[in-house]
Amino acid sequence: MRVHAYAADEAGGRLRAHEYEAEPLGHNEVDVRVTHCGVCHTDVGMIDDEFGVSRYPVVAGHEAVGIVAAVGDAVDQDLLPIGQRVGVGATAGSCFRCQWCMSGRHNLCPHKDNMVLRGDRGGFADHVRASDWRFVCPLPDAISSADAAPLLCAGSTVFNPLVDNDVRPIDRVAVVGIGGLGHLAVQFLAKWGCAVTAISTTPDKEQDARRFGATDFIATSEEGALREAANSFDFVLSTVSADLPWDDYLGVLRPRGTLCVVGVPPGPIAAATMSLLPEEKRIAGGVTASPTRNRQMLEFAARHGITAAVETFPISDVEQALDRVRRGAARYRVVLEL
Amino acid sequence: MRVHAYAADEAGGRLRAHEYEAEPLGHNEVDVRVTHCGVCHTDVGMIDDEFGVSRYPVVAGHEAVGIVAAVGDAVDQDLLPIGQRVGVGATAGSCFRCQWCMSGRHNLCPHKDNMVLRGDRGGFADHVRASDWRFVCPLPDAISSADAAPLLCAGSTVFNPLVDNDVRPIDRVAVVGIGGLGHLAVQFLAKWGCAVTAISTTPDKEQDARRFGATDFIATSEEGALREAANSFDFVLSTVSADLPWDDYLGVLRPRGTLCVVGVPPGPIAAATMSLLPEEKRIAGGVTASPTRNRQMLEFAARHGITAAVETFPISDVEQALDRVRRGAARYRVVLEL
Repeated sequence: MRVHAYAADEAGGRLRAHEYEAEPLGHNEVDVRVTHCGVCHTDVGMIDDEFGVSRYPVVAGHEAVGIVAAVGDAVDQDLLPIGQRVGVGATAGSCFRCQWCMSGRHNLCPHKDNMVLRGDRGGFADHVRASDWRFVCPLPDAISSADAAPLLCAGSTVFNPLVDNDVRPIDRVAVVGIGGLGHLAVQFLAKWGCAVTAISTTPDKEQDARRFGATDFIATSEEGALREAANSFDFVLSTVSADLPWDDYLGVLRPRGTLCVVGVPPGPIAAATMSLLPEEKRIAGGVTASPTRNRQMLEFAARHGITAAVETFPISDVEQALDRVRRGAARYRVVLEL
Repeated sequence: MRVHAYAADEAGGRLRAHEYEAEPLGHNEVDVRVTHCGVCHTDVGMIDDEFGVSRYPVVAGHEAVGIVAAVGDAVDQDLLPIGQRVGVGATAGSCFRCQWCMSGRHNLCPHKDNMVLRGDRGGFADHVRASDWRFVCPLPDAISSADAAPLLCAGSTVFNPLVDNDVRPIDRVAVVGIGGLGHLAVQFLAKWGCAVTAISTTPDKEQDARRFGATDFIATSEEGALREAANSFDFVLSTVSADLPWDDYLGVLRPRGTLCVVGVPPGPIAAATMSLLPEEKRIAGGVTASPTRNRQMLEFAARHGITAAVETFPISDVEQALDRVRRGAARYRVVLEL
């Protein structure tokens, strides 16, 4: 099969039409005809070679929504019929034999098909291939395809830590950064039953944050705002890709609180020992979910009417779309229509 | 009552005999006639004003063992009779009304009587006063007084994180630093059912570590030793008071592993985002236990024959004792006999 994709030929280069011939379908593989694909910061990172791992031409995209077009001979078509509307997200396969896969934690498989870093054959194309059909998520009818796309990576990234860190509805929580990830995190946590404080640099997003379900808002540009919030939260989810004053963020935790980091700041996360020890605080890393938990995330989103706030662009306007993401201007997630 | 104590008059000063008059006993207070008192690194820190909070004269000591000598009128003498052999450790009282006390987490009470930082009226004296009798631990007969003393702070510090981090007998664990804290941690974890690796700078302590129950040993001075241990442990307990190559220690964790820090390094704990995020690793601070958990710790120690390896000194040789601790020469914990 001939795949019609959009590729960059060099770091920061404009995308151009790019065709490649797909290999014959493997036993467990699935081809999805893409109708929508979200644009994640890491897609721009791969196009711009921010991580130093890009091999050109780069075909990015790991929040693909579409229709099952073809399946390998080992795929259970009762569970994944041709024509089914599905999502292919940050992870599109794993080894199914390591201890992590065998424990239901396929997202930690060292051999997983990491769509984020695949760098070619991504979702900015008319077709995308998942290396294992069990990673291909049927989508609830209640969620439109454009709205669903960002859930597949951004949603998965912020939902998984809530479960893995045992966040409870009685907890007081905060979300740092109200962007593509953060605006979903606020929604999930509000529907989780928590009191949710949105933390942003300026007051610009307060109204939006409250619409997403935040009960309180902190603008860190206001002198002393974080200090005033000392000892307030059981769980803080940091979604920003900037270096933060980490001790201040540990300071807003209550005893035994967790600062979970899912954004990727350039510098190290550094904490004074005395920010951690006397009150048993923690810093935890977060990652996207396993297939089972992604299905739980989608079901939870459908049940509670949680959707990404999206700006959609036809693929012909892909440069404009990428520009929105590069500048952090999207309100709140960009989705391409193919 | 006249208390005969040993005090330093200036930072790093020699201890001298020092008397003070104890106030009348409060309702919930207990006076313990001290027979033994452990010497913790933080005692030397208070004597030497390492933390910048010492007020002289300093009477240090927060691992006191002795006999209940007098009790306030609200003390339940069925539970704590005069003459009972007891320990008074890192915390000697709390408010019994805040949410932390009300949740059984008296060790996190913001108003706790923190013996470590009390700095005067410590256990280097013929009597020590606990501000609340419920913090005074009756000692199991199976543990001698000299052996029990270090359990009250060092033991409590390394035991509490095992419970609070849900360490399981099927976990692979490591203890960094085989000293006053570490040699107890190895014993607790071995009896917890875990495979325990002791991590030390040089091979000097390997034989001791194996005697304490370690199943493996890593000397970090050996080139590449930590790298070879990459991806090995579910839980690593760092007991050292030095700045470590934190990313290397996060590297020896398996996915979802926890690096728990109970030693107090001078610098910040700094981790690359990529050491934490992709495999959901954590850094957690640890602190001494609540009264209930201290009793569980003592019962566990008694049941499994866990005791501190102690060097005992008569109080007349206190300077020699302090010197052993200052130089990190103790094998493995120093206890004063009064």
